[in-house]
Parts: sequence; C-alpha cells; structure tokens
Amino acid sequence: AFTRGMQTVTLIPGDGIGPEISAAVMKIFEAAKAPIQWEERNVTAIKGPGGKWMIPPDAKESMDKNKIGLKGPLKTPIAAGHPSMNLLLRKTFDLYANVRPCVSIEGYKTPYTDVNLVTIRENTEGEYSGIEHVIVDGVVQSIKLITEQASQRIAEYAFEYARNNQRASVTAVHKANIMRMSDGLFLRKCREAAEKHRDVKFTEMYLDTVCLNMVQDPTQFDVLVMPNLYGDILSDLCAGLIGGLGVTPSGNIGANGVAIFESVHGTAPDIAGKDMANPTALLLSAVMMLRHMGLHGHAKKIEAACFDTIRDEKVRTKDLGGNSKCSEFTDAICQRVRDMD
Amino acid sequence: AFTRGMQTVTLIPGDGIGPEISAAVMKIFEAAKAPIQWEERNVTAIKGPGGKWMIPPDAKESMDKNKIGLKGPLKTPIAAGHPSMNLLLRKTFDLYANVRPCVSIEGYKTPYTDVNLVTIRENTEGEYSGIEHVIVDGVVQSIKLITEQASQRIAEYAFEYARNNQRASVTAVHKANIMRMSDGLFLRKCREAAEKHRDVKFTEMYLDTVCLNMVQDPTQFDVLVMPNLYGDILSDLCAGLIGGLGVTPSGNIGANGVAIFESVHGTAPDIAGKDMANPTALLLSAVMMLRHMGLHGHAKKIEAACFDTIRDEKVRTKDLGGNSKCSEFTDAICQRVRDMD
Ligand SMILES: CC(C)[C@H](C(=O)O)[C@@H](O)C(=O)O
Ligand SMILES: CC(C)[C@H](C(=O)O)[C@@H](O)C(=O)O
Repeated sequence: AFTRGMQTVTLIPGDGIGPEISAAVMKIFEAAKAPIQWEERNVTAIKGPGGKWMIPPDAKESMDKNKIGLKGPLKTPIAAGHPSMNLLLRKTFDLYANVRPCVSIEGYKTPYTDVNLVTIRENTEGEYSGIEHVIVDGVVQSIKLITEQASQRIAEYAFEYARNNQRASVTAVHKANIMRMSDGLFLRKCREAAEKHRDVKFTEMYLDTVCLNMVQDPTQFDVLVMPNLYGDILSDLCAGLIGGLGVTPSGNIGANGVAIFESVHGTAPDIAGKDMANPTALLLSAVMMLRHMGLHGHAKKIEAACFDTIRDEKVRTKDLGGNSKCSEFTDAICQRVRDMD
Repeated sequence: AFTRGMQTVTLIPGDGIGPEISAAVMKIFEAAKAPIQWEERNVTAIKGPGGKWMIPPDAKESMDKNKIGLKGPLKTPIAAGHPSMNLLLRKTFDLYANVRPCVSIEGYKTPYTDVNLVTIRENTEGEYSGIEHVIVDGVVQSIKLITEQASQRIAEYAFEYARNNQRASVTAVHKANIMRMSDGLFLRKCREAAEKHRDVKFTEMYLDTVCLNMVQDPTQFDVLVMPNLYGDILSDLCAGLIGGLGVTPSGNIGANGVAIFESVHGTAPDIAGKDMANPTALLLSAVMMLRHMGLHGHAKKIEAACFDTIRDEKVRTKDLGGNSKCSEFTDAICQRVRDMD
C-alpha cells in the first residue's frame, strides 16, 4: 500500500541471523517513525539464459524500481562455480564504491580510542576481475585490471564524499612502487581528482605503510581511497580497531542514487533463531542509508539511540559484553527513540 | 686475514643511518666475541650488458663466496626504471622466503602484549612479477604469477621453520575465494605440505579475516605463510603491533644456506650522522643471522643484552622514548654482553 511521503526500500533479510536483525531494524525504524516501507526479497542466485548466474528477477525488479536496498548477511555458496552473492549484487547494480565508516564507539572498549575514518574501496575491478589462466601446468596467472574510468570515478567519489561529509583529507592507498602501471594509473587519477578539489587535503601512502601506521595511530587517518583488494583488507583491519564487523556499517554506492547498505559480518548459523544476535551493524548500515536518502533527522535519532544504549552498558548483547537478548537490546533502542520525541 | 674458526659475512652498510647502525652491530659483535668477520660491500645498482640492472660484481662475488649477508637500509632509487635494490637482491640470490618474527618487547609499551608470531612471505613472484600491460588506452593489467614450484617451496619452508623453531601451528593466508586459481594453487600446496608435517597444526584463513583478527588478538597467531603482497602488508602490520620497523628483524632466505638479513626501516636521512639512530632492528636481524649460522650461544647473549637494555629504560634511543645517543645505547649493550661472561 502506498503511504504518502513514504519511500520504499528493498529489504534482503539474508540467511542465518539475517531475518532476526532485519526484524530488529524494522522495529526500530517504526519506533522512530522513519518514512520507509520495506519490500522484502530473497536473492539466492539462479542460473539465467546461457548458464549465467543472476539474482532472481523479482529482486532485480524491486531494486531497479526502489534504487535503495538494505541487506543482511548471505551465506557463502559452497557449490563450485556458484558466485558470491555479495559480488554478484555489486556487479548487477554497478555499485562501484564500497564505503565503510569506522568510528570508535563510546563505552565499547578496544585498544584504540578516537578512531574516526572512512575506507572507500573501488568495488568493480582490480584483483576481483575474475580473469585467471593456467599458462602451463603449475603456472597460474590472475589478472588485476585497473581502468582509467573506474579509477577516476572512485577518486572523484572519495573527494565528493569528503566534501559532503566535512572531512578534511583523502589518502590514496597504493603499491605503485611495485605495480607501476596499474596502481600507477589509479594513483594518477587520484592526483587529478585532488587537483580539482583543492579544499580537501590529499596524501598518498603505500599500503604496507598504511597498515603499519594504522595499528600504531589510526587517528591520523580520515578518508582513505584504494583499489578493490586493498579495500577488502583495510576495511576489515579498521573494523577490527573499533570492535569488529558486528558494529561496522557498510554501503555499496552506484550511479544515479542506486545503493545497497549491508552488514558485512557472517550469518552466524550457531546462534541463528536464538534471539542472541547483535543488530548494530545492520542498524548502522540502515542509518547510513537514511543519510543517503537525505533523512538526516531520522538518521541522527536512531544512531544516537543505538550509541546511547551501548554506552549505557545495561542492555547489551553477548558479543558486546552484555547478557541481553537481541529483542531486549532492540526494545531498549526503541524506547530511547520514543523518549526523544 | 683469515682467523681460525671465523666465518666471513658480507656487510652492506647501506645509506643514511646505515653506516652508523652497522658500526653499532659490529661493536656489539666484537664485545660478544662473535666469530664473524665482515666483508663490506656497497650495492648501488649498475647497468650490466644488455642494459639489465645488476648489483656490482664485487658485491655479487662476496655474497657468492660468503653466502651470508647483513644489510642496512638502502635508499629508494628515484630514477624511473631504476629497480628497488631490495627487490634486486632478493632476485639475484633467489631469496625465496622473507621471514619476520614479531615478538613483543618487554618494557616497550604498545597496545598489545604477548605478541609472538612469524610471518613467512613468498619473496619471488605473485604480485611482484613485474609483468604489466596496457591493453587499450586507459586499461591496464598487472599479472600475479603463482607457480606450483614456488608455492611448494615456501609452504615446505614454513613447516620446516615451525618444526625447527618449536612453533605449534602454521596458518596459510589467502584470498582463494576471489583468486580461485592462483591463491587456490598456493593454498593447495600449503595443504599438501601440512599433510607431510602432521606434527604442526595447520589452519587457513582469508587475508581480510587475518587482518581483522590480528588487530583484535594477535596472540592467536603463530607462523603465518602467504604470497608476496600479502606478506608485504602483514609483516608491516605485525611490526606495528610490537613497536614498528625500528625494532623488527628480517631475514631473506634462499637455497643452500644463502641468506641476507636486513633491517626493513628506512634510511632516516634527517638523523643520519647525528648519532641518534636506533640500531635494534639491524642488531636483531644480525641475531637471526647468528642463529641461521648455528651460533646459538652468541645469538642468545646479544639478544638478551639488547632486550635487557630496552627493558631497563635507562639507556634508550629517542624513538624508544629515551634520550640516549646511538653510541650510548650501543655501549650499554656491549657492557651487558661483557658482564655475561
Ligand atoms: C565475501 C567476500 C567475497 C567479500 C570480499 O572479498 O570482498 C568480503 O570479504 C567483503 O569484504 O565484502
Ligand atoms: C621497498 C619495497 C619494494 C619493499 C616491498 O614492497 O617488498 C618493502 O616494502 C619490503 O617489505 O621489503
């Protein structure tokens, strides 16, 4: 049913704990009167014409129409040749920027404080090209593909992101001392984007140096932009600094407003259905989504309620060091959201 | 002059602070009566027949004869097309295993304690193949080359290392979910080596997961083995956990006993010649060298003297939080070494 002022979002609850944490997010959104209605879809990959893997047509249509999706964890397919759904989704909707803010959560202790950075990962090519060959028996090559177009697009995105989010600097992460042509091209495009955005400070750093500096003092970093594999590594490393994948949001951004926000933790089959899961990562991803949609008031309210609940320590899920159930944690956030009105 | 029982080692002092820290190591070795004599060589790359870059013949001959080298930092060449000397040395002597122990240093505080792991990096191929092409304008590919032979060699080395160093487990680090053929081959060779070394526990983990787990709890890791680029990243990350490149040793191991041990920090031109450098990384690399040569008694003595001096806090170089000069730090270690007799 169409409700005035409502926007429809495609919801992919996912596997394992996915449905529980999706239900938690929906409940909190309702408490916050967020003007979102959900269109649920499942996305198990199917074989299309010509044997190509694709996402089910009803999920594709829903995303094509709504443009915005929220997605829980999907189990990794075990069948050989079966693609990772995460990769297939990124590909299907050309979600070229993977954005992961890593911000220290007050009251949730890790060895680091005041982390406040964002990794922006090129999401469509690089080491993830999927092109591999056996040259002769026992000799294999994988091809890392870097294009001017994709490098320029992600570099531009990083600077736009910095500007739109009041962030002062962008660091390009690379190994152009080793991969002179491919990372060299990526780096050149970052430099060109930097020239066009002189209000944002630009630095470049080798990936190994970034890793070393990151564990010694992450507060020196702000926005980081990098090719696909380096982003895979650094985004997980940075998530580790602030408490892991259970508390870090993620967004996959495409052109023309298309985007899928997702929690990047696993499906945790061992605790699925036991009301023990922590919905924070999916909730914070949904908050990123609200901001992407321009719903800043609702975003702020829900985010504050979530962080306040964690900081308060009384109602926390097990992985956050507490004893509460997923439903209790969810209700505590709902209560705080309502109290703000 | 040949001295009875002495072994000759090729010493490449290097640039910047290289000569100072090399002098410090020589002084400490003398105090410890280590049966080593040094043959100093410089290794600025030269252009050989056919325009190929090579290391100077007298350095090559020295290494060919002595088999063992100790090397300070070398400045990164800036001329386009000029190769990294570090890479050229690895290549020239087929130093296929890069070994970096990362052990927490008592008294030198970082956010982590009880780190005690070793990264073993394949040092000859992978992303460092140097093969790159422009496919069409704006489209570049870099080739990651993985061979059965090099993968098997490094996997075997990792298990032998674990056994010889009383280490309980080996973790293979990979992205075979993405690079199914290349990392798949690497992983298969690790599994095969594991089959042959059942006394050592074997696990496999995705690179991104390793990074996340590493910053959350590095004590869970023991020996890690991985392709070239992953090793570049992880070895620096792990060095960061225990205090940085100023305190981490490194060895490049080849076949038939050939090896070059090196500090992997930079040349620090800003403090070169000012008696301010910290010789610890080169000294601990030299200690690794002594163990490689079977000189365990001397290794133990020098290592203990170094760690005791750091733990004591009275005589530390600036980067270690102290006020002492390189020469004072060196003398303090010499004194302790002598006191042990
Ligand atoms: C699931 C896997 C294919 C994926 C990746 O390697 O990109 C994951 O690690 C991620 O970061 O989203
Ligand atoms: C100097 C550079 C070429 C080198 C590398 O990338 O391997 C360095 O980072 C290292 O780890 O020894």
